[in-house]
Amino acid sequence: MTVHRLTLGDVLREHRRSRPTGTAAVDGPLRLSYTELDDRVNRLANALAAAGVGRGDRVCYIGRNSVRLQEGLLAAGRLGAVFVPANWRQSADELAFVLSDLAPAAVLWQSEGIGEAVRAARGAAPEAAEARWVHCATAARETGADEYEGFLAAAPAEDPDGDGDGSLPVLGLYTAAFDGRPSCALLSSDALLAHSATLLWLRRIEPGFTFLNSGPLFHVGTVMFNLAALHAGGTNVYLPAFDAAEAARLIEAERVDHIFGFGPMLDAIAEAAGGHDLSSLHFTAHSPEWDARITVGTDPWNASGMGGYGQTEVGGMLTFLALGMGGAGGAGRPSPMVQVRIAGPDGGELPPGETGEITARGRTLFSGYHGRPELNRRKAAGGWHRTGDLGRREPDGTITFIGPRLRMIKTGNENVYPAEVERALRAHPEIADAAVIGVPDERWGQSVTAVVQREPGAALDAEAVIGHARSLLASYKKPRRVVFVEAVPRAGRLPDYAALDAEHGGGGYPGE
Amino acid sequence: MTVHRLTLGDVLREHRRSRPTGTAAVDGPLRLSYTELDDRVNRLANALAAAGVGRGDRVCYIGRNSVRLQEGLLAAGRLGAVFVPANWRQSADELAFVLSDLAPAAVLWQSEGIGEAVRAARGAAPEAAEARWVHCATAARETGADEYEGFLAAAPAEDPDGDGDGSLPVLGLYTAAFDGRPSCALLSSDALLAHSATLLWLRRIEPGFTFLNSGPLFHVGTVMFNLAALHAGGTNVYLPAFDAAEAARLIEAERVDHIFGFGPMLDAIAEAAGGHDLSSLHFTAHSPEWDARITVGTDPWNASGMGGYGQTEVGGMLTFLALGMGGAGGAGRPSPMVQVRIAGPDGGELPPGETGEITARGRTLFSGYHGRPELNRRKAAGGWHRTGDLGRREPDGTITFIGPRLRMIKTGNENVYPAEVERALRAHPEIADAAVIGVPDERWGQSVTAVVQREPGAALDAEAVIGHARSLLASYKKPRRVVFVEAVPRAGRLPDYAALDAEHGGGGYPGE
Repeated sequence: MTVHRLTLGDVLREHRRSRPTGTAAVDGPLRLSYTELDDRVNRLANALAAAGVGRGDRVCYIGRNSVRLQEGLLAAGRLGAVFVPANWRQSADELAFVLSDLAPAAVLWQSEGIGEAVRAARGAAPEAAEARWVHCATAARETGADEYEGFLAAAPAEDPDGDGDGSLPVLGLYTAAFDGRPSCALLSSDALLAHSATLLWLRRIEPGFTFLNSGPLFHVGTVMFNLAALHAGGTNVYLPAFDAAEAARLIEAERVDHIFGFGPMLDAIAEAAGGHDLSSLHFTAHSPEWDARITVGTDPWNASGMGGYGQTEVGGMLTFLALGMGGAGGAGRPSPMVQVRIAGPDGGELPPGETGEITARGRTLFSGYHGRPELNRRKAAGGWHRTGDLGRREPDGTITFIGPRLRMIKTGNENVYPAEVERALRAHPEIADAAVIGVPDERWGQSVTAVVQREPGAALDAEAVIGHARSLLASYKKPRRVVFVEAVPRAGRLPDYAALDAEHGGGGYPGE
Repeated sequence: MTVHRLTLGDVLREHRRSRPTGTAAVDGPLRLSYTELDDRVNRLANALAAAGVGRGDRVCYIGRNSVRLQEGLLAAGRLGAVFVPANWRQSADELAFVLSDLAPAAVLWQSEGIGEAVRAARGAAPEAAEARWVHCATAARETGADEYEGFLAAAPAEDPDGDGDGSLPVLGLYTAAFDGRPSCALLSSDALLAHSATLLWLRRIEPGFTFLNSGPLFHVGTVMFNLAALHAGGTNVYLPAFDAAEAARLIEAERVDHIFGFGPMLDAIAEAAGGHDLSSLHFTAHSPEWDARITVGTDPWNASGMGGYGQTEVGGMLTFLALGMGGAGGAGRPSPMVQVRIAGPDGGELPPGETGEITARGRTLFSGYHGRPELNRRKAAGGWHRTGDLGRREPDGTITFIGPRLRMIKTGNENVYPAEVERALRAHPEIADAAVIGVPDERWGQSVTAVVQREPGAALDAEAVIGHARSLLASYKKPRRVVFVEAVPRAGRLPDYAALDAEHGGGGYPGE
């Protein structure tokens, strides 16, 4: 019934009534009240509609953090379309794949720093040829018709009100590479709001909450706090890309409550902070230098940080340490919006103490991957989403995360799927076979190591392998070290990872 | 999609996994873990199914507070049926109306104290003749087949899993009498969970939360906290009916965090507490005696208590003071799960500062009244629920509650709501009480007449009353005539308008 509807767009509509002058966004010199944000979202939605964007269409964004990501999401939502922020650090080849995969009706893109890759990708993706391309200038607010500000300003501010159905996908985020290529997980307005309601509770977010978008907005980790701040009627502050000194300045200037960050980022901010006051930050303890500058949460809710288990496909977090610490490797208890079942190979529920696949159902779950009907059937067989991760239910009801069922490398908080890097390596004419492992690394958690079998007679060296990988993949995915072997050991269809780890120092995989 | 489902029953299923030994309920000598509660709910559901209860059927409960209300709600939910706890303090005639109105498939009833009325109602309601009647003994746990414990124990504990659709009504609560008879507001599992998620946030409810069910569970005020405790995986402690000394004993024994209570109840508990330790209670300040015994919340979240505006039809609370105090009469800002619109007579949204009907849409909204199709159409016309109450949006976005719309005066084509004028009149220090009626007027249709009761000793005259009203209201709303009376007659919470009209010439109301 209409009377029950609540979409992301509705949340903004109510903020316009309830907090007309409240600060919704700070993005460089731009400061937007909720009234102004709502007007801009309506203008962008109407401009996109005039450009042919309609229900179910994709709007792709390729660029750094900006309020335009939130405007794009909310505007797409008001048309029943899907907003997909792509990873702008990707190579031209990777971006071309995204454009081909999405066949977007519109593309919002930046040229600063990444223009060459985007232009190359555009040329290589015929599926995006019909799209309306709108450029997002960062240095100046250009107002031409193909420039974001001009595109937006020329359209009327009336609310198009095309978001009656909150169960429609509204956001797409590229994630796990199951077949060597990433898949775009679709999240509905319903799922995003159910997830943010959980964060409001578990992070004790108050209406004045100010979040510094210091992590990339093409990852769910930053997106989920961005949306929680929006849901609470708080303020989102945007940092185009991570910059420790600028982060410290903004934390003081905007009295930031929370940032997205992990170890090395926090160290860098503490080091670069100088005389800036960071005490408005309510964050978990990390190091003496960090703790001395911020307000360290002391109750279990805060002290547990964002600990828990999650993935893009569940909207962010599935379990929270704040709901029960459990033991070593403990991931806490499920969010109040979901159920979690540890499933055996046949899909049946396993008793406590037995390890199986973590499966889930509930309000925050995604709506499948864009354009992957077969994969979607497999992942949701039996009405439970198969996370692809292994876990165990403890006798006290908490969940222990064991590790990916298919393996994954964690480096600098980025997920690297060996299958994806291996596929890129094997594309080189002088590489016969390749396997990728993670080697424990003090600074990054793990570092990517490639074990490469050359074609007979090939003289390829490590530098060439790394250069090749870099030409096809984001930099963080490229191998840092290359080992040449006579033959990559195989266990059936897959590389024999156990043997490779043993021989080449692999280990430290997430969950181990 | 199945993968998105989360019903009240699913919440209990997950608690059984996540908190198998956690205490779900304390009801006299009965202490139930979440595992035991889930087993009992399944047995009751299977027993009800065997008695013929199926999707859409009503299960009526007539009796005092008990864990059986929660069991009945959850069991009915697992069959797709609706659980309706009736007000057990009603007369036989009123109970007979409820039974006729519901035509229940099963009735769970108590005899203690109310047996005579229930039996008389049963005899007078042929619509309930086919129902399965199950008696709920309170003094002893009787185990006959028509006794609750025996009825439940004879059925298997397998989960019937009939609650796949969370949008189905699961709870019915009798509320406003629109046509002189109460109507049963139907609430879905989706609405109840959306509401409890809001309470988890705004009341900072933690997983160990213990709630004393000290108010009646046929009212949304107690129900909403009962369900929030369930949603959080906390403990519900049941008091059959209010008893100050027993409440104090239970607060200490169970380390109760929160109770449902208002002024006189709190005074009675403080007075009866004796040596009992009430410090586990986190509650709002009330009186020196009360405050000295409990833990008084100091942050605005706690200090504002449950202040705000609500009604059964919105699942409980629609607006919260915790989201912005506003001024005198302020009701705060809307819950994050809803939108609120102040609507004019034609249903269009009014600008800030103008008084109109509070209308709402969102996740916590009810699904209409049982068996009232015409009323449901009227209340949800245009896709917004008409609360029947008047409010005003302030420039800061907060909402001021004015009073029930009920009757309206039409003067010179303007709408005047008596509640609004009365509220303005009562703000005068020399006015003890006031009521406003419309008197037929040849020129204006109706003219506004104020019936005023002065404070003892006050010499206020008609001119001063009119001048005072004019200083607070638009000119067309001010009384044209003032009648002074010894006391304004009251019918419950509201002035007795029928008596006032008869005595002072009221009439000619629009729609009459």
